[in-house]
Amino acid sequence: MPSMWRLYQFPLCPFSRKIRLLMGEKQIAYDMVREDPWAASDMFYNLNPAGRTPVLVDAEREIVLSDSRAISEYFEETVDKAPMINGTVANRAEIRRLVALFDENFYADVTAPLLSERMKKRIVLRQPPDSRALREAMKMAHGHLDYMDYLIDNRPWLAGSQMSLADLAAAAQISVADYLGGIDWKGHEQTRGWYSVFKSRPSFRPLLTERMEVIQPPAHYAQIDI
Amino acid sequence: MPSMWRLYQFPLCPFSRKIRLLMGEKQIAYDMVREDPWAASDMFYNLNPAGRTPVLVDAEREIVLSDSRAISEYFEETVDKAPMINGTVANRAEIRRLVALFDENFYADVTAPLLSERMKKRIVLRQPPDSRALREAMKMAHGHLDYMDYLIDNRPWLAGSQMSLADLAAAAQISVADYLGGIDWKGHEQTRGWYSVFKSRPSFRPLLTERMEVIQPPAHYAQIDI
Ligand SMILES: N[C@@H](CCC(=O)N[C@@H](CS)C(=O)NCC(=O)O)C(=O)O
Ligand SMILES: N[C@@H](CCC(=O)N[C@@H](CS)C(=O)NCC(=O)O)C(=O)O
Repeated sequence: MPSMWRLYQFPLCPFSRKIRLLMGEKQIAYDMVREDPWAASDMFYNLNPAGRTPVLVDAEREIVLSDSRAISEYFEETVDKAPMINGTVANRAEIRRLVALFDENFYADVTAPLLSERMKKRIVLRQPPDSRALREAMKMAHGHLDYMDYLIDNRPWLAGSQMSLADLAAAAQISVADYLGGIDWKGHEQTRGWYSVFKSRPSFRPLLTERMEVIQPPAHYAQIDI
Repeated sequence: MPSMWRLYQFPLCPFSRKIRLLMGEKQIAYDMVREDPWAASDMFYNLNPAGRTPVLVDAEREIVLSDSRAISEYFEETVDKAPMINGTVANRAEIRRLVALFDENFYADVTAPLLSERMKKRIVLRQPPDSRALREAMKMAHGHLDYMDYLIDNRPWLAGSQMSLADLAAAAQISVADYLGGIDWKGHEQTRGWYSVFKSRPSFRPLLTERMEVIQPPAHYAQIDI
């Protein structure tokens, strides 16, 4: 039996989604185990003391990888196909700056509050969402999309002339925020165009067809042409 | 005039400290501009749309770098001296996993609440600290130090046989938490020993002798033998 990656992930975890997009683009085979971050098992803490998804395991070769940026750098160093942290040292620094911006700022401003209000309160806490927090997250989303519009006005892809990990990181965050009804696309034609190209990629299809129990995305979520 | 790096930083910002330690170890020359994160100027947002320290600029060569991990990878790729993300691909993944653990989990659990209670409330909000939040941060610090004790029991440095960016990231967080009186060293002999070796390095001395206005560190803060 060939050695095989196993991804411990959560369907609406944007960092898990970034790794699924990356492995899709690089055509690396894997299977998945679902791990709910609010109910992490002792076994999971043994794999990753941070208790966070995603974690990637190759049991045969005894490799355990955690943290989506560490995993991305690992694949960049070991798989030649579809380089995603590419170009001059300046390009590479720009890619990593943008990955951090989406992983940290977009996540903290938009994705995390949406996950907390629309998913955690519903599934775990059984409380109604706080509409002020939702409005604030959607307002912050506009600010981030404005910045993306500006980038895409000046470059074909977010970090420059080639698709990169910055695009995967951004698409992963946006796809979760969009699933949770937090993205108002009005006035963001550039980013909408970029995202629509992205949605049609084979690496993205499995994400778009997946549904969480209880929580359903808006109608436009999986449509490619809007 | 030779081209020169300028670091926009804040004295108690652990990410700025990580870059200062890294540039010290690699013997890269730079000067510093202080930027208070709670009062970032428009000029600073132009340099870094995330509005966060550290930012590193080489005006002559028109290079602007943000995000401490992107900056670290940049120096790893451009400066041979004192490699800090070194070894096999597995070693490198382990270094990056631990950097993320200290940058994200240690920071969120320990350093950020201490900065908020002991610095921001004092300097910006002019409120007394919340003693429950302080106790909780110190309790979380014990958990992180336990994990570091365990790592150092098994390896000379946090990520393996060589000093790496993981050690710099951890020392940067701990030094800020220690400055703010949040580290109780009792029961953490391994980590205390590791940290004491670290404190005696030339790269660390400038950090230890610096003082913030108003806030003073505990007596042991800059002492090397405890
Ligand atoms: N730096 C990590 C962040 C991963 C992360 O925050 N995962 C979330 C789910 S989206 C999680 O597991 N949170 C649970 C927790 O922090 O306890 C990465 O890039 O992989
Ligand atoms: N990912 C960034 C994090 C930097 C960061 O959080 N810096 C803090 C100061 S320690 C900051 O500028 N906070 C202000 C803000 O987030 O608005 C890095 O590694 O450089």
